[in-house]
Amino acid sequence: MTSALQLSGERFAAVYYIRAEGPTQAEARARAICLEQTVEFPEPLIPEAAIRRQIVGEIADLQAADQGVYRAVIRYPLEVAGDELTQLINVLFGNVSIQPGVRLMDFTLSPGLFRRYRGPRFGIAGLRERLGVHQRPLLCTAIKPMGLSPAQLADLAYRLALGGIDLIKDDHGLADQPFCRFDERVQRCAEAVSRANRETGQQALYLPNVTGPFADISRRAHLARGAGAGGLLFCPGLAGLDSMRSLADDDTLALPILSHPAFQGSLAVSPEAGLSHRVLFGLLNRLAGADAAIFPHFGGRFAYAEADCRDIVRGCTQAMAPEGTAAENGAAGASGMAPIFPVPAGGMRLDRIDELVRFYGRDCMLLIGGDLHAHGDDLAGSCRRFRDLAEAAVSH
Amino acid sequence: MTSALQLSGERFAAVYYIRAEGPTQAEARARAICLEQTVEFPEPLIPEAAIRRQIVGEIADLQAADQGVYRAVIRYPLEVAGDELTQLINVLFGNVSIQPGVRLMDFTLSPGLFRRYRGPRFGIAGLRERLGVHQRPLLCTAIKPMGLSPAQLADLAYRLALGGIDLIKDDHGLADQPFCRFDERVQRCAEAVSRANRETGQQALYLPNVTGPFADISRRAHLARGAGAGGLLFCPGLAGLDSMRSLADDDTLALPILSHPAFQGSLAVSPEAGLSHRVLFGLLNRLAGADAAIFPHFGGRFAYAEADCRDIVRGCTQAMAPEGTAAENGAAGASGMAPIFPVPAGGMRLDRIDELVRFYGRDCMLLIGGDLHAHGDDLAGSCRRFRDLAEAAVSH
Repeated sequence: MTSALQLSGERFAAVYYIRAEGPTQAEARARAICLEQTVEFPEPLIPEAAIRRQIVGEIADLQAADQGVYRAVIRYPLEVAGDELTQLINVLFGNVSIQPGVRLMDFTLSPGLFRRYRGPRFGIAGLRERLGVHQRPLLCTAIKPMGLSPAQLADLAYRLALGGIDLIKDDHGLADQPFCRFDERVQRCAEAVSRANRETGQQALYLPNVTGPFADISRRAHLARGAGAGGLLFCPGLAGLDSMRSLADDDTLALPILSHPAFQGSLAVSPEAGLSHRVLFGLLNRLAGADAAIFPHFGGRFAYAEADCRDIVRGCTQAMAPEGTAAENGAAGASGMAPIFPVPAGGMRLDRIDELVRFYGRDCMLLIGGDLHAHGDDLAGSCRRFRDLAEAAVSH
Repeated sequence: MTSALQLSGERFAAVYYIRAEGPTQAEARARAICLEQTVEFPEPLIPEAAIRRQIVGEIADLQAADQGVYRAVIRYPLEVAGDELTQLINVLFGNVSIQPGVRLMDFTLSPGLFRRYRGPRFGIAGLRERLGVHQRPLLCTAIKPMGLSPAQLADLAYRLALGGIDLIKDDHGLADQPFCRFDERVQRCAEAVSRANRETGQQALYLPNVTGPFADISRRAHLARGAGAGGLLFCPGLAGLDSMRSLADDDTLALPILSHPAFQGSLAVSPEAGLSHRVLFGLLNRLAGADAAIFPHFGGRFAYAEADCRDIVRGCTQAMAPEGTAAENGAAGASGMAPIFPVPAGGMRLDRIDELVRFYGRDCMLLIGGDLHAHGDDLAGSCRRFRDLAEAAVSH
């Protein structure tokens, strides 16, 4: 019995850094990845030439990148990734995640992959349009601390919206706890932000955290939309990237999604393993439909490096378009997957806004949490100061 | 407006290794974790004493563990974790995953947590019962390589079942590709294994890979059960731990679950960050309902250390029971969360079975893939040899 395997020949590329002691070992390791991520079978035992030719990954390029590190470009058949994000991620980095000394640095979209993923529904342009804010960074904060009641959080949300914050999100630790039930919190906070919007004429968005049990994610998201929430907060590290994609692709929701990095940090922590910051916080978030990606800005309490943050910006904004098209080269007006907002966070303060805007430019979302509460009781006043500082920063 | 926060006072413990230059810094870092994982708010700004007292984590113990490393036991309120696995994981390691020099080593179940999680439905005892195999390690293999048609894979599954393999799983790269659709593959393979079982009088199980798109996981699992599959393969790193829990807890499925580590490796790779092997492959898999956990045995192509594998065994089998009960001390007959099979894998060969059984004892599942195909065309013969070697290894 032989198969009638006949694939399209279309392949997409993944870029790895591989630790190796020399070009021979680098080539052997790259070749091992080609097998590991596809057939996971000893090469001599592959039963059909068609499988060896059509299924196994191919080394498209292999270069020394640094002392003891090689950069390998491996091309995988489109069909191996199927139509599913889980399997695409499996091909990119499933089993090799268990091997030391291999890091996924980047990947590209072939035309077939590009067609399978809708990507961000809003992205930078769509979210600006929705908020009517075109010139300055977007302003974001969280309602917290955990332990406040739904009524107290709603009061907070109301005052933050009055103060002119664009996006008011749940703290990512607010789930469905007995002391603060999801349904009541979301109803109250959405109502509070709507009330503030009626008073200000602005259109602040409330984004509840819909990370939750597998069978309740969609219900929570739809309850949020019904209550008037203007977006969703989601932690793909806790509940899965494809869960986020399912929310992003749901036309009956059609809400902007802010991705939170909880539990994802370890995936990027070793420079010799895991995923590059670009892939983890940028490319995968976009592929899974996030419109903005939260990550720790350098110099905060999370100690990311400046280079990591630059890499994240590239992942949020680099061209994601079919290879070889005008859009891949970033041509204006050409169609690719929308760029999304980088959201530097992690103990950011009002006195760092200038520095943040110098680094990220205007197309970022500034997330300031605790520090809005550190300047006395006039919360709305602190919010106005936040906005003034952001506006001033772009006019420098 | 003040809250009427009134929590039970019940707390569960997480054990971290924290990098610090001395006891003062260690204490400060541990205290920072207590805040980060709960209120995520500057301590002086917490608006109510009740929140500071009832919500924030508490340092229960802090000791020097190694040069520059401290072991901190932090106790979190039960209610902060809510009733959801996603939030429990968020409390244990959500934001601190982004901080370097913090590793989650272990955690314990308080009575309230224990009640909320059903854990493995089968575990070691239940799976042995189901298979009628009580004395020797269980035998597992995968149908592969990717690229074979459903009919070819079914033929393979048939011969493996005839040869006496206990658990025949999909290769974890088999998803729902155009060259091998999930529905057809699962129907054919389940039928083939049933046919072999009728011939041999044994009860080999076929475990299809139901990792897939968020909205299709449950459908695939139910299709598998309807077709006669005897278990499920799942990759929680790709589709989320809570997705696996939802399959394990589904009484209309009631199938054993084999957890595959794809994409999870980076979570444990740095000894100074991420999760211990025990937590990642043992405790979390059990909490999420897996009955067996695949991981790379040391000395294979994945280069895990012997100590890592011992730690995984502990995670698969250590007591998971309410603190302070007889079951926590492993008392016979006392009720805790079932221990599960460690499944050492990653390029294992028939000639290593003796070594594997010496290391893991009889309560392990031996997973041999490619090597079953490396000894000539008589696949059933290689399977019988696999079984003979496993039986002989426990009688030494």
